[in-house]
Amino acid sequence: MTPEREQKLLSVLARRQPDLTLIAEQVHKPRNISALIRNCDAAGIAEVQVVKPKEGYHNYRGTALGSDRWLDVGLHETIDAAVEQVRTQGMKVYAAHLSDTAVSYREVDYTLPCAIVMGAEKEGISPRAAELADEHVIIPMQGVVSSLNVSTAAGIILAEVIDQRLKAGLYDQSRMSQEWIARKLFEARHP
Amino acid sequence: MTPEREQKLLSVLARRQPDLTLIAEQVHKPRNISALIRNCDAAGIAEVQVVKPKEGYHNYRGTALGSDRWLDVGLHETIDAAVEQVRTQGMKVYAAHLSDTAVSYREVDYTLPCAIVMGAEKEGISPRAAELADEHVIIPMQGVVSSLNVSTAAGIILAEVIDQRLKAGLYDQSRMSQEWIARKLFEARHP
Ligand SMILES: C[S@@+](CC[C@H](N)C(=O)[O-])C[C@H]1O[C@@H](n2cnc3c(N)ncnc32)[C@H](O)[C@@H]1O
Ligand SMILES: C[S@@+](CC[C@H](N)C(=O)[O-])C[C@H]1O[C@@H](n2cnc3c(N)ncnc32)[C@H](O)[C@@H]1O
Repeated sequence: MTPEREQKLLSVLARRQPDLTLIAEQVHKPRNISALIRNCDAAGIAEVQVVKPKEGYHNYRGTALGSDRWLDVGLHETIDAAVEQVRTQGMKVYAAHLSDTAVSYREVDYTLPCAIVMGAEKEGISPRAAELADEHVIIPMQGVVSSLNVSTAAGIILAEVIDQRLKAGLYDQSRMSQEWIARKLFEARHP
Repeated sequence: MTPEREQKLLSVLARRQPDLTLIAEQVHKPRNISALIRNCDAAGIAEVQVVKPKEGYHNYRGTALGSDRWLDVGLHETIDAAVEQVRTQGMKVYAAHLSDTAVSYREVDYTLPCAIVMGAEKEGISPRAAELADEHVIIPMQGVVSSLNVSTAAGIILAEVIDQRLKAGLYDQSRMSQEWIARKLFEARHP
């Protein structure tokens, strides 16, 4: 790795957020999972949580789904397991869910430790995930189509997260452990 | 069409925005074009502008690209032609472009008549489009990957547009011409 590349990588790792994650609940198209992970990278998420679809993945390639070099991917069999893990980390759980009790995604405080749950392509958020969440958030839509693509919806919510966390200075100083940063640097040097 | 369906459709058409559009500059993957149009629908865009890729489309199916039932699609051979049309309609032109002079996409006033230019998958915004634009807007990213998927980027900018226009009351009363609404209703009844 060139010194410039290492410098760039270090500055990215220094902006990773220990108290922010996204839970992809049974999202099953590999293209959507990749797009979600790309959006998580952009928001500085250190570890994304994936709840496996019941039918499994079509082109499943290990835990990585092709992009765990810069962030970790936590795999879970059930939404309960995923939510339990993030609760242990002290996170609030916001489900992106088109329900009657949902509030606008801009009304929520994302500077608190939090996890955002995104639903599957067809089924959306499961009843169990809806129940486990502290809050449902919705992106107001003005058109005929009733929902957005899952990665677009995640991108929109994460853009609000970025905005709030930039203003709160949460990307200004390194917040991850030295061990985590050292491990990711090692992985980047030995792909 | 059931009366309920017609009612729903009328209320959507009444929220369409005569002074807002998106210009897709040589975006060539049909899946990205469809996702862009879905996002435009969600923001209440009445007519989206498409600048054809030089190589044409792989699976091109007429002007519609599969979804002109609820909004119109204007096809253009060049970015100059697309920009000329929106300027005639009194619109400002904002290019979503990762340039040195770009301002944050949240700093721009989208309640003014405006068009948002989105760039191609690989090439991004062309030098000509960058030159024609009044302003370049950028979505700040905190990760390793240097750009977002084009439809995600459009979704994020349009979510800010929706937020500003909701606050300004621009979705509160019908702003399109009676002729336009009547034509779209007719098209919906006779697909
Ligand atoms: C294609 S949608 C699923 C649609 C499903 N038929 C439903 O009604 O939930 C996939 C996921 O994207 C997210 N999503 C899509 N549009 C959204 C919106 N307007 N607000 C909040 N989340 C949205 C949700 O997490 C949803 O479960
Ligand atoms: C995949 S990107 C093109 C990347 C291209 N290599 C470049 O440097 O412009 C496709 C389009 O999405 C939009 N886009 C992607 N990420 C963006 C960001 N962070 N800010 C503004 N626009 C973005 C731009 O319109 C861009 O032309």
